[in-house]
Amino acid sequence: MDYPGRQQRLREGLRCSRLDSLLVTHLPNIHYLCGFTGSAGALLISQGGSRFFTDGRYAEQARAQVEGARITITRKGPLGATAEHLTKLSRESRSPALKMGIEGQHMTADARRSLAAMLPRHVRLREAPPLVERARTIKDGEEIERIRAAVAMGAGLYDHALAAIGPGIQEVEVAAKMEYAARTGGAQGMSFETIIASGSRSALPHGRASTATIEAGAFVVCDFGVILHGYCSDRTRTVYVGAANQGARRVYEAVLESQQAAIDTVGPGVPVSKVDRAARRVLQQKGLARYFTHSSGHGVGLEIHEAPRLAQGQQEILRPGMVITIEPGVYIPGKWGVRIEDMVVVTERGCEVLAPTQKEFMTI
Amino acid sequence: MDYPGRQQRLREGLRCSRLDSLLVTHLPNIHYLCGFTGSAGALLISQGGSRFFTDGRYAEQARAQVEGARITITRKGPLGATAEHLTKLSRESRSPALKMGIEGQHMTADARRSLAAMLPRHVRLREAPPLVERARTIKDGEEIERIRAAVAMGAGLYDHALAAIGPGIQEVEVAAKMEYAARTGGAQGMSFETIIASGSRSALPHGRASTATIEAGAFVVCDFGVILHGYCSDRTRTVYVGAANQGARRVYEAVLESQQAAIDTVGPGVPVSKVDRAARRVLQQKGLARYFTHSSGHGVGLEIHEAPRLAQGQQEILRPGMVITIEPGVYIPGKWGVRIEDMVVVTERGCEVLAPTQKEFMTI
Repeated sequence: MDYPGRQQRLREGLRCSRLDSLLVTHLPNIHYLCGFTGSAGALLISQGGSRFFTDGRYAEQARAQVEGARITITRKGPLGATAEHLTKLSRESRSPALKMGIEGQHMTADARRSLAAMLPRHVRLREAPPLVERARTIKDGEEIERIRAAVAMGAGLYDHALAAIGPGIQEVEVAAKMEYAARTGGAQGMSFETIIASGSRSALPHGRASTATIEAGAFVVCDFGVILHGYCSDRTRTVYVGAANQGARRVYEAVLESQQAAIDTVGPGVPVSKVDRAARRVLQQKGLARYFTHSSGHGVGLEIHEAPRLAQGQQEILRPGMVITIEPGVYIPGKWGVRIEDMVVVTERGCEVLAPTQKEFMTI
Repeated sequence: MDYPGRQQRLREGLRCSRLDSLLVTHLPNIHYLCGFTGSAGALLISQGGSRFFTDGRYAEQARAQVEGARITITRKGPLGATAEHLTKLSRESRSPALKMGIEGQHMTADARRSLAAMLPRHVRLREAPPLVERARTIKDGEEIERIRAAVAMGAGLYDHALAAIGPGIQEVEVAAKMEYAARTGGAQGMSFETIIASGSRSALPHGRASTATIEAGAFVVCDFGVILHGYCSDRTRTVYVGAANQGARRVYEAVLESQQAAIDTVGPGVPVSKVDRAARRVLQQKGLARYFTHSSGHGVGLEIHEAPRLAQGQQEILRPGMVITIEPGVYIPGKWGVRIEDMVVVTERGCEVLAPTQKEFMTI
C-alpha cells in the first residue's frame, strides 16, 4: 500500500484546510495512513513529516508495520506523548503559532480537553474536516483487490447458510456454521454480527441471529460479511423456507427489481441520492415504498460502514474507485421481510458487482 | 433488573455533583439504567423523571425493554431529539438555568459541540464524573447470577480448545471450534476476539488467533469469553504442547502461584493496588517480574473492560459485589508466554472464584 503517498495527499488537504498538522487518532484512519493495525496509537502528520506514537506493547508491531512516519514508543499514552513531543519541539526552536487539527468526530470531549491542557501554548486545536474519511472513499487498485477477495470469501459463506437452513434449526446454528467456515477459511473475523432473521423476525432490519427456531412458511434474511486482510465484505441474501405463496414471491421480485434499478444507476458523476431514488421508485410503483425503512447503501472498506451514505438528502457524488453496498429491503411488521444486498465498485463507465452470484427467488 | 432503582440512585449522585440532569449516551450505561439494548438512543435522567430518545427502527424494542423512562421516538437522532425536548420544555415554562451533565469520556468533541449549539440558552453542559461507571462496579444479585452463567458457559469452551489443540493445527481452527460451541450453546457472541497464541506468539499478550500452526515444544495461551444475557465472561488457560522441560514448568508454576497470591488478597476494603502488588511480588521472588508487562486485572460486567483496573497507582478500594479478573502473565519475548486468568466476585468476607476449574500444569 502506498502509505507515504496517502500521507502526502493528506498534507495537501491540510493546506487547503489551513491546518499545519493533523493528529490522527481514529484507528482505521491510522491503519489507512501508515499501516499500523494495533489498538493504541496516534499519528501526527505535519508538513515536515509524520510521527507515530504508541506504547511498549506495540513496539515490535509498529516497527514491522508503520511506513512513512518516525516511531516514538512511550509510556504516556498517545495523547500525552504527542503533547510531550510538541513541547520538546517548541523548546528547541521559537515555533510560531500552529493550528493542529483533531478528529472531532472520533476524539471524545474529555480527550480533547485533556490534550488541550497538555499542549504548549502556541499550539491551537481545531476540529478538522473528515479529510481521511474523504480520501478513504476512493479505493486504489490494491484496496479493490483486497475487497474483492473479502467479498468472494464472504459470498462463499451463503452456501454454508443454505446447507444449514431448514425448519427446526435455530438461527444461531446457521450463523455458527457460517462463522466457523469463515474462521477456518482464514478470515480475521466477521465484519459485523451475523444477521439470520427468520419468520416474523425477518421484518427486523437488524435481526441478529437468535435462538429462535426457523419455521416453514416464511423468509430467512441472511446478512453477513468477513474481514480479510483488513477489508470488510457485506452481503445479504434472503431465502424462503417451504412452499411460497404469490405474495411472498411478489415482494421478493420487487426488492430484486429495486436493487437492479439502483445498480443500473451507479456510475461516476451520479449523485448518491439518485441511486437511492432509483431503488425507492420501483418499490413505490409496487406500493411497497413505506416498508423500505432504511437507506439504500453505504461505503465499505477498512470499516463496515464508511462514507458515502446512499440516502435522500445526501450530497455526495459517486466517483471511480468508490465501493458501496446496494441493499434495498421491504419489511412488513409482524409478518416478514426481504433484503438483497451486493457490493459494487464504481468504475470509469458504470459499476461492477463484486462476486456476483445467483439471487433469483429461491425456496428451501 | 431494578432499572428504576438504578435511575433513582443516579439522581442522588447527580445532586452531589451539582447537576440537574445527566444525558446518558454510552450504550452500556443506557442498558444498565433502563434495559434498552439497541444501538441508537439517549437517556435523559432529571430529578423529575427520565426520558429515552430513539428512532423508528427501535420503537418496538424500546417499548418492550425500557423501564423507568418515558419514550420519545424521533427522526432527529438522539441528541437532536434531546435538544428539541428541552427547547419545548423551556417554552412551556420559564425554566431556571439548568446544568446538564454529559458523558465526556464517551461523547465525541463534535457531538458535544453540535449538542451545545442546539440547546436552549438556559441549559449549560458540564462534563459529569463517571457516575454510571462507578455504580456499575458493584453488581447486584441478579447481575452476579448472569455473570456466573456467562462464566460457566465460557469455562466450558476450554474443553473444546483442549480437544482441538495439537501440533499441526492452526490457531484459528481452535478459535473457530470454541466460537462454534459458544454460538450453538446460546451465547450472544464472544466478549472479545478469541486469543489463541502458540509458540513464540504466546509471548504476545494480545495474540489473537492467527493462521499460525501450533507446534510442539511450546505453550498455547487461550484467552476467551462469551456474552450471555448481556454479561461478559473472561478467562485464560495456558497449556503446553509436547513434553515440557523444567524451565517451562517453573514459569507456569510461578504464574499460578502469583495468581493464587492475588486471589488470596482480594476482599472488601482492600486497595486494588495491593492485589496487583501481591501478584507481582511472587514473580519478583522468581526473577520474572519484568516479564509481567500488564496490569493484574480489571472489572467485568456489561462490558469486557470496566472499572476498577488492578494496577499500581490505582486508588480504588474493593467492595462486595465487584467482579474482577485476576490475570498475571509472564512473557519472554521471542520465546513464550503463560497467563492464567479467572474472574472473582468480592464477597463480604473475601472472594469467590467463579466457575473454578483445574489449572495445574498440563501438557497435550
